[in-house]
Amino acid sequence: MFHKILIANRGEIALRVLRAAKELGIQTVAVHSTADADAMHVRLADESVCIGPPASRDSYLNIHQILAACEITGADAVHPGYGFLSENAKFSEILDAHNLTFIGPRAEHIRVMGDKIEAKRTAKRLGIPVVPGSEGAVTDDVEAKRIAAEIGYPVLVKASAGGGGRGMKVAKTEADLSDALANARNEAGAAFGDDAVYIEKYLAKPRHIEVQIMGDGKGNAIHLGERDCSLQRRHQKVWEEANSPALNVEQRMKIGEICSRAVADLGYSGAGTIEFLYEDGEFYFIEMNTRLQVEHPVTEAITGIDLVHEQIRVASGGGLSVTQDEVRFQGHAIECRINAEDARTFVPSPGVITHFHTPGGLGVRVDSGVYSGYKIPPYYDSLIGKLIVHGRNRVECMMRLRRALDEFVVDGINSTLPLFRDLVGNVDVANGDYDIHWLENYLANKD
Amino acid sequence: MFHKILIANRGEIALRVLRAAKELGIQTVAVHSTADADAMHVRLADESVCIGPPASRDSYLNIHQILAACEITGADAVHPGYGFLSENAKFSEILDAHNLTFIGPRAEHIRVMGDKIEAKRTAKRLGIPVVPGSEGAVTDDVEAKRIAAEIGYPVLVKASAGGGGRGMKVAKTEADLSDALANARNEAGAAFGDDAVYIEKYLAKPRHIEVQIMGDGKGNAIHLGERDCSLQRRHQKVWEEANSPALNVEQRMKIGEICSRAVADLGYSGAGTIEFLYEDGEFYFIEMNTRLQVEHPVTEAITGIDLVHEQIRVASGGGLSVTQDEVRFQGHAIECRINAEDARTFVPSPGVITHFHTPGGLGVRVDSGVYSGYKIPPYYDSLIGKLIVHGRNRVECMMRLRRALDEFVVDGINSTLPLFRDLVGNVDVANGDYDIHWLENYLANKD
Repeated sequence: MFHKILIANRGEIALRVLRAAKELGIQTVAVHSTADADAMHVRLADESVCIGPPASRDSYLNIHQILAACEITGADAVHPGYGFLSENAKFSEILDAHNLTFIGPRAEHIRVMGDKIEAKRTAKRLGIPVVPGSEGAVTDDVEAKRIAAEIGYPVLVKASAGGGGRGMKVAKTEADLSDALANARNEAGAAFGDDAVYIEKYLAKPRHIEVQIMGDGKGNAIHLGERDCSLQRRHQKVWEEANSPALNVEQRMKIGEICSRAVADLGYSGAGTIEFLYEDGEFYFIEMNTRLQVEHPVTEAITGIDLVHEQIRVASGGGLSVTQDEVRFQGHAIECRINAEDARTFVPSPGVITHFHTPGGLGVRVDSGVYSGYKIPPYYDSLIGKLIVHGRNRVECMMRLRRALDEFVVDGINSTLPLFRDLVGNVDVANGDYDIHWLENYLANKD
Repeated sequence: MFHKILIANRGEIALRVLRAAKELGIQTVAVHSTADADAMHVRLADESVCIGPPASRDSYLNIHQILAACEITGADAVHPGYGFLSENAKFSEILDAHNLTFIGPRAEHIRVMGDKIEAKRTAKRLGIPVVPGSEGAVTDDVEAKRIAAEIGYPVLVKASAGGGGRGMKVAKTEADLSDALANARNEAGAAFGDDAVYIEKYLAKPRHIEVQIMGDGKGNAIHLGERDCSLQRRHQKVWEEANSPALNVEQRMKIGEICSRAVADLGYSGAGTIEFLYEDGEFYFIEMNTRLQVEHPVTEAITGIDLVHEQIRVASGGGLSVTQDEVRFQGHAIECRINAEDARTFVPSPGVITHFHTPGGLGVRVDSGVYSGYKIPPYYDSLIGKLIVHGRNRVECMMRLRRALDEFVVDGINSTLPLFRDLVGNVDVANGDYDIHWLENYLANKD
């Protein structure tokens, strides 16, 4: 087991990792920018090192400074949290070269999954269902029609170099296809200087469902069920739950087993998440995140398994603490990401939290790095806390969430608490009846 | 189901009940003395009524005022919490007479279990193991000697009306017995106005182990395992855990089944606890508490069952939400009772809490009615919060408790947090190797 872990992150996730390390009897080192000297994880760590000015590229992304902090403190492992250097294959390799353990998967797996086309190819090879579509760019309209007919309409024409919806056209029938191709090529050429387009099945109202996996790096892997993260705003998850209201036990176990078999075949090590779009009973691979995710606590709530403990165990060469047969899914959990933002305009609201009071009682967990009197710096993301509620079933969980939100006090700044107080009373949310577009539509029509 | 519940209590337990009622969609009424106008449960309740001046007898024990508050607010049920009126059979009958539901067992069961001699007789009849001793009061010294010889020395002479160690004497041999009887009678007469005493087997180093039961009032009952509450100071529980480190699964299920069968036979309704001394593999009935207990959250942690939800369901005429077969005991839980007291002298420390910050993360629950800026009134008990930690096993639970205690901040007053930081690092506590005298000895020898 490690002697001392350096936590290369900030905010609630730095505190999350610190807690796990302490619980395993491992010494902790916090690193922080000059803006984060008063952060909770800095106060609670055994040692702390200032690694630079506020700008992330000069501190939390500054590999040289982090290596120096490891050397100064004698840390033997680094936990990257999420964001920052957590999916940086080069960082992992540099740590290796300095005989430091990166608590995460091997560099090759980070690299493969970090490349969208390579990731999809690998997923397909490993038996993970992907969105049906053309293999690469389509240049010929006749070929395009053949592929589209095979997939079935509607289809989506997408720019190979694309992103953000540009160079993206829907063809509802074969009659639309030629125009869609031409328009998409034009837009793609103008936007990206590359007019290559490809064809995919169009999903009108998909859900975002992701599967949590853990591999031991020795060819064994387990899945810990799924999370439904369909409630998103601008591709940012806002509310996550496990289990998904859309799946039954058979579907859960089937997609879970596909994912655990795939990562076992890969020889994957540590925590990872395979993200899917889900529509009409079918899963379609989006990407794999080769790190811990913000929403991991909902999985911990329903399984009782501490994912960061497992990450640390696996990285130190130990096995997973449970087998698939020992994993039990119990009850239902929901996480709300509470941001320091106006709940209507989503304008960030840094500043001093004059009063911070968290809810308590049965089934309520709060993960937060802030406290009364803490000044939120303006330099980083606006997440100030995660409220995770567990109940024996979804109805109990929702009722408990409602009362926990009533108790939560964040004074002195704006927070998104009012949004969640609205959502928990919404009939669609109560019914679990939402897709990835639901929240944007709700927000657009609310005012 | 009830429409509106009045909570006839204060502090953390008032908030505990309020949370459960809210989660069941029931309106809540807080009552409070003039000293508690700023209490958390008052702030969070749908309605609140001031029922009198600070002195408990004029407010929280004032039945007329509580009845008036029910009438004013239209409450249809009253939850008494623990302490105050929770084991007052007359209160329960008065509520009945006013067509209000007392959320607790029937008056006859409160009454039977409130009388020590009657309780022991009933327990024995129901097959619950009792401490061998006299059947009722002993008035004659010759009879006393015969009984003591039958039990075997040492024996304990106890006041029938007693409590808190008053009117209690140990006789090590027959030669001590007459003096013990005389002294106990004198003390009992002075303390309780009743000099009746009885004789019991003396246990040198027992543990305090209690079994949580729930009855539906229709002849069905379940047990929810035991709690080990041996760590006590002056008969006040300080640290409670489930499961008991002293029992194995067979012992747990055996004593649990004895208790659930007994309360089923009684037709008992609601939550109750059967308390035992435990020594050398044998259980000896002490008393039955016909109410929710302070330490109920450790049972909730290992079973996932909300005991206050169950109390409310049963009182409203519904059944229990689980059968015995559905109860699963998972992992280990420990509760620390954090008091506003000096951790060395135990002198109460009322006043303003300038900063109150509770630990978070996986497996950590805090039940507390206080907050930053709250002024603890000097009139009531000194409990300011309960820290309940759950882990997959006792070792994980202890490690998690240690880190949670490190995070807990109570500034402005003295608290007993330092005591728990000592205990969690103690080797006997780590080994679960303690009896009901351990903490007193530890405290006496610490300085």
